[in-house]
Amino acid sequence: MVTDTQNLQSEVEALCATARWCYARGWVPATSGNFSVRGGVHILITPTGLDKGRLAPEDLLEINPEGAAVAGRGRPSAETGLHTVIYRERPDAHAILHVHSIWNTLLSGRFASSGYVPLEGYELLKGLSGVTTHEHEERVPVIGNSQNYEQLSMDLASALKDHPAAHGVLLSSHGLYTWGQSVAEGRRHLEALEFLFEVEGRRLYSGHA
Amino acid sequence: MVTDTQNLQSEVEALCATARWCYARGWVPATSGNFSVRGGVHILITPTGLDKGRLAPEDLLEINPEGAAVAGRGRPSAETGLHTVIYRERPDAHAILHVHSIWNTLLSGRFASSGYVPLEGYELLKGLSGVTTHEHEERVPVIGNSQNYEQLSMDLASALKDHPAAHGVLLSSHGLYTWGQSVAEGRRHLEALEFLFEVEGRRLYSGHA
Amino acid sequence: MVTDTQNLQSEVEALCATARWCYARGWVPATSGNFSVRGGVHILITPTGLDKGRLAPEDLLEINPEGAAVAGRGRPSAETGLHTVIYRERPDAHAILHVHSIWNTLLSGRFASSGYVPLEGYELLKGLSGVTTHEHEERVPVIGNSQNYEQLSMDLASALKDHPAAHGVLLSSHGLYTWGQSVAEGRRHLEALEFLFEVEGRRLYSGHA
Amino acid sequence: MVTDTQNLQSEVEALCATARWCYARGWVPATSGNFSVRGGVHILITPTGLDKGRLAPEDLLEINPEGAAVAGRGRPSAETGLHTVIYRERPDAHAILHVHSIWNTLLSGRFASSGYVPLEGYELLKGLSGVTTHEHEERVPVIGNSQNYEQLSMDLASALKDHPAAHGVLLSSHGLYTWGQSVAEGRRHLEALEFLFEVEGRRLYSGHA
Repeated sequence: MVTDTQNLQSEVEALCATARWCYARGWVPATSGNFSVRGGVHILITPTGLDKGRLAPEDLLEINPEGAAVAGRGRPSAETGLHTVIYRERPDAHAILHVHSIWNTLLSGRFASSGYVPLEGYELLKGLSGVTTHEHEERVPVIGNSQNYEQLSMDLASALKDHPAAHGVLLSSHGLYTWGQSVAEGRRHLEALEFLFEVEGRRLYSGHA
Repeated sequence: MVTDTQNLQSEVEALCATARWCYARGWVPATSGNFSVRGGVHILITPTGLDKGRLAPEDLLEINPEGAAVAGRGRPSAETGLHTVIYRERPDAHAILHVHSIWNTLLSGRFASSGYVPLEGYELLKGLSGVTTHEHEERVPVIGNSQNYEQLSMDLASALKDHPAAHGVLLSSHGLYTWGQSVAEGRRHLEALEFLFEVEGRRLYSGHA
Repeated sequence: MVTDTQNLQSEVEALCATARWCYARGWVPATSGNFSVRGGVHILITPTGLDKGRLAPEDLLEINPEGAAVAGRGRPSAETGLHTVIYRERPDAHAILHVHSIWNTLLSGRFASSGYVPLEGYELLKGLSGVTTHEHEERVPVIGNSQNYEQLSMDLASALKDHPAAHGVLLSSHGLYTWGQSVAEGRRHLEALEFLFEVEGRRLYSGHA
Repeated sequence: MVTDTQNLQSEVEALCATARWCYARGWVPATSGNFSVRGGVHILITPTGLDKGRLAPEDLLEINPEGAAVAGRGRPSAETGLHTVIYRERPDAHAILHVHSIWNTLLSGRFASSGYVPLEGYELLKGLSGVTTHEHEERVPVIGNSQNYEQLSMDLASALKDHPAAHGVLLSSHGLYTWGQSVAEGRRHLEALEFLFEVEGRRLYSGHA
């Protein structure tokens, strides 16, 4: 948990390193994706339209509880409100990562009508906090994509309430939101979920599922 | 927009960095691909037969409005004329990127007969300038490949006129041309289109489309 | 073979370099995987929950023959006992690598019911020590995954006895264990097996096998 | 063409850089693959069993026209004789690259019975020296794999005579040999052929060919 200035600075650096690493993997193409950490009641978050391959701590915006930028250059992304929803619904979350990968895009589209992507039977599920066995079924809720961010915020809040144990939420044909008590935990969830999406995706799309 | 010498120098460096990054991703194998920026009435463009993995500013040729090389070593590529066509038909374009990826090659072949690759429903479409919703349908025109560059220039001009809102053009079983008001915008278009080609390609080729 | 302090130090450095390289390839996501070398009767092994992308020699735990940590920070992984089983059943083994790749996860699930993954006819089989022809059939045993590590240890010991010539063992929907007389040999086995899993996986999942 | 000591030194460095780059791409796993340049009547070639990810000029063996090592450490690879055959049948060749990629392994197995992999209609064919149009059909001969290197040498010589315009030869379920008048040309052929193998492989294995 982020408790003081020194920790926050180190979390911000870990967040930027994670964003640059996501760019290198092709998970935040075309200035897509956004990343934040929570420090006290404020949020530090990536502004809109920034190339994540070169993200540095000074690029982050500071957002107050009312959602207004109080420090930093650049404009807040339209998705800033979704981060706010997650921090509200998941009080333990102190870092949020949002990425667009090939496999999360494919699976979020394919499972949009069933409401969630089921992941079950894989050892890598244990990369998700609190999961202690491969026999766990993780349901990653999928909400419909929308450019109406008020609607999207409500749908996201509902999904988080309906799936209290979920470690991530997918927006259909859009991308994944995941989070953690720290950047390291958020990144662990991201790596685990993206690995499982690719395994499930390759299995399902092979016609041998 | 490139307006003076300092900007042009910085655009040239961004162009070369983008070309080297494309090489690292496998998008310009075997000295393929070409890249240019427009500065005033002249064009700075990669010469033929150069390994893009080591492209440096001094490698670029300067081309005058008549299409003749006025500075730099090396021979102009046969595709220089296609850059000229794009700069003429898209007055706002100041950077052009042409790459050969696995997925643009596959989709350009598959959709050659229908005349364009349709891309619709993906959030990443918003990586294309002026597109504000995933509900947008982007049609990426596909023109037949040819070694007759006069023919190819005419077909490219027609495709650009017929699809005034298109952010890129595919040559069948050949590759993608995309552009932007700056190298950064061109690269954003490239990243968005290539991501969408891979998602659509994997979906279509899986037999589950 | 590791015979003295200097060799052990160099093996530990090779082990950490191999772990970081596996992370870069996406084979040990979300702090998964573990790696060890044997020096005399003790084992040096990665602790639980560590990001393998930054593994350094000082991160390793030293384990005595009774399985207790006698030096180093961090907690032993639950899978430490599986390393002990392999070192007991394969007296020549001095390094063990355990990774979770997309293709070993897919194939270990697909072949769980038949008991082993068959690999035959590929030149790359010669990357496995003692194999001198592509006509060799390598059978990589698959044991069921379990969170009962006593059961898993017994199943692993049985698989190693039943397949005395095997160069690796798969845990179903979990990952690969492979080993060598040195880190270099273990890494060669890892590279050969993962290459063959991907080739076989792509062939089988294409519907053209 | 390599004509003097300075050029030879620079070719050797280019060869080693190419080998390390092939390793990074996963094309020479598990110490597989081999690489050579011709300087006068002697050949400089990688010895057997070396990790190509760290290849340096001092690792190369010098082989005389009788096939014996006259300088350098390490043992010649069993495949040294295949390099000799190519240099004999292709007098212009001064560099040879042999790699094992996922897609050349898959296609060489799939087309073993038809005798060659056909590649046609792709712009990237122009990456092969002397090819000036995508309408060219490149036939990459496939010879059966064998551990009898005398037999393999004879089959390779026949394939080279039967396909005088071929830019590479595949060994079934084994890998690709390609070459050039220089390391740069050999690498261009390698990049073009591997790109085309992946495009064709993905198309054929998708069930939509």
